[in-house]
Amino acid sequence: MRFQQLLHVRRLASAGATTLVRRPITTTITTTGRTALAATHPAFTTTVRTMAGSGAPIPELTEITDNVQRGNYATLADKDVAHFEQLLGKNFVLTEDLEGYNICFLKRIRGNSKLVLKPGNTAEVAAILKYCNERRLAVVPQGGNTGLVGGSVPICDEIVLSLARLNKVLSVDEVTGIAVVEAGCILENFDQRAREVGLTVPLDLGAKASCHIGGNVSTNAGGVRVVRYGNLHGSVLGVEAVLANGQVLDLMSNFKKDNTGYHMKHLFIGSEGTLGVVTKLSMLCPHSSRAVNVAFIGLNSFDDVLKTFVSAKRNLGEILSSCELIDERALNAALEQFKFLNSPISGFPFYMLIETSGSNGDHDEEKINQFIGDGMERGEIQDGTVTGDPGKVQEIWKIREMVPLGLIEKSFCFKYDISLPLRDFYNIVDVMRERCGPLATVVCGYGHLGDSNLHLNVSCEEFNDEIYKRVEPFVYEYTSKLKGSISAEHGIGFLKKDYLHYSKDPVAIGYMREMKKLLDPNSILNPYKVLN
Amino acid sequence: MRFQQLLHVRRLASAGATTLVRRPITTTITTTGRTALAATHPAFTTTVRTMAGSGAPIPELTEITDNVQRGNYATLADKDVAHFEQLLGKNFVLTEDLEGYNICFLKRIRGNSKLVLKPGNTAEVAAILKYCNERRLAVVPQGGNTGLVGGSVPICDEIVLSLARLNKVLSVDEVTGIAVVEAGCILENFDQRAREVGLTVPLDLGAKASCHIGGNVSTNAGGVRVVRYGNLHGSVLGVEAVLANGQVLDLMSNFKKDNTGYHMKHLFIGSEGTLGVVTKLSMLCPHSSRAVNVAFIGLNSFDDVLKTFVSAKRNLGEILSSCELIDERALNAALEQFKFLNSPISGFPFYMLIETSGSNGDHDEEKINQFIGDGMERGEIQDGTVTGDPGKVQEIWKIREMVPLGLIEKSFCFKYDISLPLRDFYNIVDVMRERCGPLATVVCGYGHLGDSNLHLNVSCEEFNDEIYKRVEPFVYEYTSKLKGSISAEHGIGFLKKDYLHYSKDPVAIGYMREMKKLLDPNSILNPYKVLN
Repeated sequence: MRFQQLLHVRRLASAGATTLVRRPITTTITTTGRTALAATHPAFTTTVRTMAGSGAPIPELTEITDNVQRGNYATLADKDVAHFEQLLGKNFVLTEDLEGYNICFLKRIRGNSKLVLKPGNTAEVAAILKYCNERRLAVVPQGGNTGLVGGSVPICDEIVLSLARLNKVLSVDEVTGIAVVEAGCILENFDQRAREVGLTVPLDLGAKASCHIGGNVSTNAGGVRVVRYGNLHGSVLGVEAVLANGQVLDLMSNFKKDNTGYHMKHLFIGSEGTLGVVTKLSMLCPHSSRAVNVAFIGLNSFDDVLKTFVSAKRNLGEILSSCELIDERALNAALEQFKFLNSPISGFPFYMLIETSGSNGDHDEEKINQFIGDGMERGEIQDGTVTGDPGKVQEIWKIREMVPLGLIEKSFCFKYDISLPLRDFYNIVDVMRERCGPLATVVCGYGHLGDSNLHLNVSCEEFNDEIYKRVEPFVYEYTSKLKGSISAEHGIGFLKKDYLHYSKDPVAIGYMREMKKLLDPNSILNPYKVLN
Repeated sequence: MRFQQLLHVRRLASAGATTLVRRPITTTITTTGRTALAATHPAFTTTVRTMAGSGAPIPELTEITDNVQRGNYATLADKDVAHFEQLLGKNFVLTEDLEGYNICFLKRIRGNSKLVLKPGNTAEVAAILKYCNERRLAVVPQGGNTGLVGGSVPICDEIVLSLARLNKVLSVDEVTGIAVVEAGCILENFDQRAREVGLTVPLDLGAKASCHIGGNVSTNAGGVRVVRYGNLHGSVLGVEAVLANGQVLDLMSNFKKDNTGYHMKHLFIGSEGTLGVVTKLSMLCPHSSRAVNVAFIGLNSFDDVLKTFVSAKRNLGEILSSCELIDERALNAALEQFKFLNSPISGFPFYMLIETSGSNGDHDEEKINQFIGDGMERGEIQDGTVTGDPGKVQEIWKIREMVPLGLIEKSFCFKYDISLPLRDFYNIVDVMRERCGPLATVVCGYGHLGDSNLHLNVSCEEFNDEIYKRVEPFVYEYTSKLKGSISAEHGIGFLKKDYLHYSKDPVAIGYMREMKKLLDPNSILNPYKVLN
């Protein structure tokens, strides 16, 4: 339903609403939808010195560009390769054409691994790690290689341990909603299997067609459904992880309630493969919603954005499933670069994408219409579109998802992924705009407002050291002063390890090091990551 | 609305529904409600050799009855007391009338502590632990002392560290829903403060009027809202914990998304005060629901119970907030002991209490009526009551909450708190009934069906060693074979530490010990608990 129509209904009961002009979504928007976008990962998170995308050049070796001191590890020998060939079979021991495993999704990091291993089960993963630990060979676990902080590629010559063959959904229980899945299963495939019995995986992100669920868990992936389903620490019921020494740690509780001893599984959720390799997990999957509605609305101020968010939480309550913010400059960047996009509204400083998912379409429509009508009457919402048509829902999501790509399509872009208190959420964009002045072409903000997660972007024609100095470490210091998070959802990996102290105090970092020593005393697992 | 009325409406559209007799809730039920029940904790979890309740005798010292070998700790000296008096002030150093701190809620465990310390802030907690660690004095952290496995009382002469004075709600942000609270705040007070700004604490349990939120977090408390809001690992955003050596570990992220390093806060959620003392925490509080409805229904078979649960998940979806099971014998035990209770229905082998909470009362009522009508027409639901009246809602909850008390009122009761696969959920009750034969007066099951959490009860006139042998370790072996949890929500504490291996494998237990060594090398924190 367009707002015009909605407003008409409201006017029957109420006078004084302002006149709004309907701006329908044009039918020229392609309807390939969210899934098709998966290969073009929408966001990245730190200073990017190399343009991402298929056309970007192959980067130099990171060991050289970043002056990395190789750890004191053994060097791969022929006998090692022979050992692994005997263990896995020759087909699953790769020594050639390793570029896709060595280079990160953003083409920012390039390692120099000479060996990729593709075990087929947990026992093989365990045997590989036991051998590598005894031989002091460094290993980088790799899922779909869609990470954005260089966490899943080698930095020097680490052996790549690909989980791609552990790709089975082992069980989905439609009664309890509990699914058991191997780590290398692609998120979209897992979700598809869950949907066959009326469930859904409580995690959705741009890379879903290629990322692995084990990688999602290892990085505590966020995405656009956290506002509804919470983070993976709540959804993941159990994990099986192989430790550096080859021991299999079975923490595979398949129940919502299990208070038997320390809850160690959480150490493997978000530790980015530095404490162990997740090989299997169980997850609580909610029932898939029968009805999905999306509103795309224009607002005049960030104050109105906040009021609208509170109203959405109160009035949409249990059916609110996404609450995204896009500022004017961010939207325009997408619209300028991708002419096939057409925003249903324009001319506002702020836009919000609000999605509801529920079990009763009529109820949900009534709630969202009431919410929008109230917001319009209070003057907080200016204009917009609301739709429950699946094709149109995808079209609106596409606008949101093309924003990050629009910002890097023809520009260099400094990108940050931070959590900030909502009351201060947008200030940093204004502050940064002033700091950068005319040196920057675009300074904008968008992101997961519902989770206090801002993607701050500073674009310029090409990498500019003067801007770099104005932006960093200022952005981290600013975030730290507000006790925010310098990496909201993408992790630390290789690219942010020097900034960890802005979000964690020395005592906490000290105990992280102790955990690492305890679980991986020879530091063979994913070196050069998380802790510096 | 009673089912009669509901059915009448349904009949207008559908023929063939069976005739149901309305059995209204009598008005003789007292309406003191859930909160008033808090002091009488409804459930306990393991073999109880001493009757709980105000009339139960003071137990013998546990060190003697359970033949506990005191650890190699220093013995409290006058100089220690003097030191603490100087640190905290004499008012907060107790050396007399310590019974309430030494004896557990169930009057099963009795320690012999000579000293209770009541620090007023984190720095004092840190100073106490630093001193105790250097002096090798053992310490038991204590919240509201409502735990059910003897985790929060001394076993020998440990110093009791009461968190009762750290009782402030520091902030509640109605926009983000994030609250920051000190560990000693009583759950109900915390919830009341949250409700003042339209939020609610996503945790509700019988002991809410006396338990502390820090104790809830330290034990990963479950309760009756897990089916809606998930467990505390998802809701708790950050913790501040004091380690055994007095170091303050600040893991106080106040954001839903924060992927900066290892997620160590989870080590303090559910480790029962053995790894550190939680002093402060931040929690995500959802908006409180405008409408609450409760249905109390009778069913003919456990198969119908399961079908009804699946139907509730599908049709009530996002508004389902509780799904409890009570079998006939459990209900009757409550009704026989507490004559003020009146069940609206009777004569069925199974009963379910299904609660919805939502943002729109009309929508919710329509959903629950539809759900019940469908269940009746399919023959899965036989009879019942549904109400949205707050007083009636409390009356129905009271029936559920008096069940555990009914079972211990005049009997000895072997009680177990286990998670089991839903398909096998109730079998163990039948199996146990057969094993115990006429030796047991009642063998019954009830609990949080929505979380696969069964409370299995075996009652007899007094403690009976023959029954004990028939029940244990059989119940743990049975649970273990189904890969269930031998402690779903109450933890391990002192009473279950010998059974931990039924739910955790040796490798996992080994690493738990390593975690304990790392964080509390002198083992001064809550000894004799969790790990044996």
